Formats: sequence, C-alpha cells, structure tokens
Amino acid sequence: MTQDDMEAERGRFVALAMDAIKRRGEEVNRAILARETRTPRAKIDALFPEETDLFDAIVAEWFAPLIAIIEEVIPADLPPNRKFYEFYARRFLHMRQRYLADPAVFELYCELGKDHFERVESYIDLADHYLSELIAQAQADGFLPGLKIDQALSLINQMMHCYTQPDVLIYLGDRLTLDKLARIIDTLFAGLSAKDGGASGVAGLRTA
Amino acid sequence: MTQDDMEAERGRFVALAMDAIKRRGEEVNRAILARETRTPRAKIDALFPEETDLFDAIVAEWFAPLIAIIEEVIPADLPPNRKFYEFYARRFLHMRQRYLADPAVFELYCELGKDHFERVESYIDLADHYLSELIAQAQADGFLPGLKIDQALSLINQMMHCYTQPDVLIYLGDRLTLDKLARIIDTLFAGLSAKDGGASGVAGLRTA
Repeated sequence: MTQDDMEAERGRFVALAMDAIKRRGEEVNRAILARETRTPRAKIDALFPEETDLFDAIVAEWFAPLIAIIEEVIPADLPPNRKFYEFYARRFLHMRQRYLADPAVFELYCELGKDHFERVESYIDLADHYLSELIAQAQADGFLPGLKIDQALSLINQMMHCYTQPDVLIYLGDRLTLDKLARIIDTLFAGLSAKDGGASGVAGLRTA
Repeated sequence: MTQDDMEAERGRFVALAMDAIKRRGEEVNRAILARETRTPRAKIDALFPEETDLFDAIVAEWFAPLIAIIEEVIPADLPPNRKFYEFYARRFLHMRQRYLADPAVFELYCELGKDHFERVESYIDLADHYLSELIAQAQADGFLPGLKIDQALSLINQMMHCYTQPDVLIYLGDRLTLDKLARIIDTLFAGLSAKDGGASGVAGLRTA
C-alpha cells in the first residue's frame, strides 16, 4: 500500500470504529474493531500499531470539525469582538447539533475524553493557542487592557466555560443560548481589564 | 421521644450515615445504615419513614454550611461588588477545603448529587433566589443596567459557573483562584448591561 492508501484505509477504519462505538455504546479497541468488522487482527494492527493509535485517530476525527471552525475564524476580517463571538458560537452550535443528533453517544464521548484526558489535552492546548492570538488582536485594538495574555486567557476560558465544555451542554441544555453567549462576550469586551475594580476589597479587610 | 429528641436522634444518624458513605465510598440507604450501625431497622424507619427522607437529610447536611454562608453575606453592610465577591468566594473556599480534605468522598457526593438532581434542585433554586436579591441591590446602585433580574441571573450564573460547580473544582483545581474570581466580578460590574455591544453582529450578517 502507498502512504495515501494507508491513510485512506485508516480513515475508513476510524469511521467503522466510530460506528461501532455508537452501536455498542462503549469504547472500541483494536480487538473489538477487528471482531466487529470481521477483519484480521493483523490488518488492524498494521493500520494502528499501538492501542493508543486507534484512540488518537478517533479523537482527531472528533476534533477535526472544531479545529476547522477555529482555523476559519482566526484569519477572518472581523472586529475582535465579532471574531470572539464566531470563535465560540460556531463551535457551540456544532457541539449542540452533535449532542441533539445522538445524546447518548455524545455523553459517551465526553466520558471517554474525561477518562483519557491526556489524549485530548493537545486539542485544548491548540484552542488556547488560537484564543491567545485572538486576545493579542483584541489588545492591539485597545480591548482587555493591561492584562498579560496568559491572564486574559485563563479568565476568558473560565467565563466562557459553559459554552466550551461539552458536558455542560448536556446538563444546561436550553439555558445556553447564542444571545447569552453574545452578551457575555460584550461584557468581557466592555469590562475585562487589569484594573482592580475593588470586588475583593482592600487587603487585610478582605473577609473571605 | 419528644420532637426535639427525634430531631437530635435524626441528626446523629445522618452523621453516622455520612461516616458510612465516607468509609464505604458509596451511597448509603436505610438498610445499609441499619446494618452498619447495628440498629434495628424499625428504629431507622421511625426516624426516616421514606428512603428519600434519609437522602434528603444528608443533602440538607451537605448544603447547610453553604446556606449559612449565603445568609451571612446577604444582609452584610457592603457595597454590591464586595457582596458578590463574598457570596462566591466564601462558598468556593468552603468547597475547596472540603474537596482537599477528602477528594474521593467529595467526588462521590458530586456523583450522588448528579444522580439524584431532583433532591438537590431546591438548594440551587434557593441560591438563585438570594442571587436575585443581590442583583436587585446592585441595580439599585446603578450596576447591571437595563437587564431584567432573570436575565442577569442567568448570565451571571453562567459566567461564575466554574466557581460554583463542585465538579469543576475537581478538574480545574489550582486554576481556580480568588484573584481570578475577583477579576471576573470586577468584569461583570464594569461590563454587564443590557446594551448590545455588537459581538453577535447585525442580524442577517451574523455568520454563525
């Protein structure tokens, strides 16, 4: 097989593995994939030499549309607040669609992601990398003043948490809306800065 | 037994049930409680006539310190942003302490709360009720302008989600800090309003 043939074949078996996950409602490893597709185990092992290769390929497939959304938004010719909105809203809509299409399988993927967080982490890091770019662009236009990029990144991640965590989508459901998402982005563009607004009080008088 | 004796006895068995939960690492029902404490089942049933009575009493015990914190903060003589901070920071610290004291048992209670959400919901509603009061106080001072209380409530709940959800505390850990909590409250006092800041774009041009 050429490299391209291998890639195509790998893609075909990742799709078959994801079908099997959906059908069986549980994680699918190489042994199960061989059985389910009546494929010699040696062939599966040639495509996925390590157990983690199959899992990683499934994760990559799950994240591909989300990364595609991000890569479409980052270079777009939009003001920073609009870009932030698209960055979150498009992924939120995509995830909600997926959730509504099959809530049980969506929950299963959330569980798998939690159980194997180390296989998923690089995608979170990649999203952070792109968000840092958006923050730098916003700061160049005078928004989010005074904050280091890492500070802004962490604060924004926390404030937007509901709209990025797939499992929050499961339990908050209809309480998450595009209008609220927009209002939260408006809030951070209007209010997020390095300025101490006094919420935590004066050191020493702080009661908490 | 007098009513007071009954109450004291019920409290004692709730404490014993919580010890058993900790020891066994699983939900404890009336049958288990009777066995674990070598108490006649009839006595347990007299104290907790329904299975849910025991569970509800455990939930009440779990939430008691959190409600006490809220009831201490609400009437405090503090400016609204300081009050918001105390409202969240004290509960966050309390939950973190509990988590650090015994991560496994904390996770177990999170699971139990998720599995029996209908028994927990009234405490969430109560916190919402008090937060609505804080919002009204803040609006009387000119903050959060133009928003209906329910709108502000939902937006603030979403922006503060990381600092109120016990299970987020488990996986975000040290990334949650009092400084960030204060910065987020400063942000919403500086930026949250009914004003459309334009993040979602003009209707029709909205790309998401």
